[in-house]
Amino acid sequence: MIKLSKIGRYEFLAEPFHCDFTNHLFMGHLGNHMLNAADFHSNDRGYGMHYLNTVNKTWVLSRLAIEMEEMPKAYDKFFIETWVDSALKSFTSRNFKVISESGQIYGYGKSVWAMIDLDTRQPVDILSVRDGLIKEYIETEVLCPIEKSSRVKMSAVPTPLCSIETYYTDVDINGHINSVKYIEHVLDLWDLSWYKEHCIKRFEIAYVAESHQGDKLHFYREQRDRDTDFNVRITKSDCDGKESEVCRCRVQFV
Amino acid sequence: MIKLSKIGRYEFLAEPFHCDFTNHLFMGHLGNHMLNAADFHSNDRGYGMHYLNTVNKTWVLSRLAIEMEEMPKAYDKFFIETWVDSALKSFTSRNFKVISESGQIYGYGKSVWAMIDLDTRQPVDILSVRDGLIKEYIETEVLCPIEKSSRVKMSAVPTPLCSIETYYTDVDINGHINSVKYIEHVLDLWDLSWYKEHCIKRFEIAYVAESHQGDKLHFYREQRDRDTDFNVRITKSDCDGKESEVCRCRVQFV
Repeated sequence: MIKLSKIGRYEFLAEPFHCDFTNHLFMGHLGNHMLNAADFHSNDRGYGMHYLNTVNKTWVLSRLAIEMEEMPKAYDKFFIETWVDSALKSFTSRNFKVISESGQIYGYGKSVWAMIDLDTRQPVDILSVRDGLIKEYIETEVLCPIEKSSRVKMSAVPTPLCSIETYYTDVDINGHINSVKYIEHVLDLWDLSWYKEHCIKRFEIAYVAESHQGDKLHFYREQRDRDTDFNVRITKSDCDGKESEVCRCRVQFV
Repeated sequence: MIKLSKIGRYEFLAEPFHCDFTNHLFMGHLGNHMLNAADFHSNDRGYGMHYLNTVNKTWVLSRLAIEMEEMPKAYDKFFIETWVDSALKSFTSRNFKVISESGQIYGYGKSVWAMIDLDTRQPVDILSVRDGLIKEYIETEVLCPIEKSSRVKMSAVPTPLCSIETYYTDVDINGHINSVKYIEHVLDLWDLSWYKEHCIKRFEIAYVAESHQGDKLHFYREQRDRDTDFNVRITKSDCDGKESEVCRCRVQFV
């Protein structure tokens, strides 16, 4: 078997129905394509979901940061390159580079992943999988020149900006609210008139806990030092009304 | 220039994050892929959005019916074949066939499209575009063995089952609520426990009017003669509270 390169490169299309009113790809769909690229890359190299499911384990996305100079436009073909730049016992770090057909760099992404046991939902040692196979594919020389996600510190905002119900189409294969849906719900905190004047420069999300269909989600928003820079906290309340944190985000506009 | 065949065939992947908790592609994403196939097919043949936008016209989806024996599972490659089987002055009828890699037929779709002028929003004569170019690609011999959409007659259900706000990510390139989002919102009228026992056999939607971000959508549901067969009406209310119909659907489960 020929050993694959450390960096995987996957082609995507900015589908017209995945573009917003400005004719640019929605950030949520870009995030989805990054997760697809991560999935293809790890499956192709033997440490992806296909193998993990046979040993009752799964990858869990812990953090994702996306920083864009420009977004692909409707019908643009683009490529996502992805590689893992570190793998420790508890976490791996995976980078993304988004490139146009002509080689122009649209932007980058950085993500952090853990691995859990499907029964106990507890973290497992990533390096124990296939004798640390993932370490054969660590790429440290290629740069991903955006900042890592930083911990979003948020004050105790007293009332949510909005609260939403969760439905069938929010739920993924694992029965949890889909990671990408949170991104979309956060972007929906600003309305069309805001997006007429601003576009997203950087989006960060840290996943704290899972939520399920039927949970109600609450969105708390707080402005940082600039009026185009925001923190968002998502909490869930279950049928007993108990509220707990699900995600924390930072959204920077220009 | 080589003339393309009447039937176009496009490959898609049932992306893992586009699958529901049963591991099957969401009906909304299948609908989206059908619209993509229609878009690629008509662009490739010179009467698609790419050309129409240069003459200030656009296609408008009027009706869509999807009937499935089975849904692609996560990571399945599948093909959508699409062709136009009639083109009149005001409407064209376009069929879809969804096929697995091994040639198994998952199901079919039927759609009806009108063409409008982008300024007046009024219908235009489809056959006037490029001297009736579309007529060179009419395929009438290949069967699409599902019923056409029928007019959904619905009683005056007094109260909506639910009402939702519309947000930035609901809006497409044209500034209207995305056709596929209505499908997702309708599917969300049933919760996870219903989908544990039932799957969708047939979905029909007729688009009556456009809605915009900020409109509130109201969903009225009525059971037909069987307890797995439903009509759904979607209305919008604008900021003045005036209510008007947007879509009408029929959803048949098995």
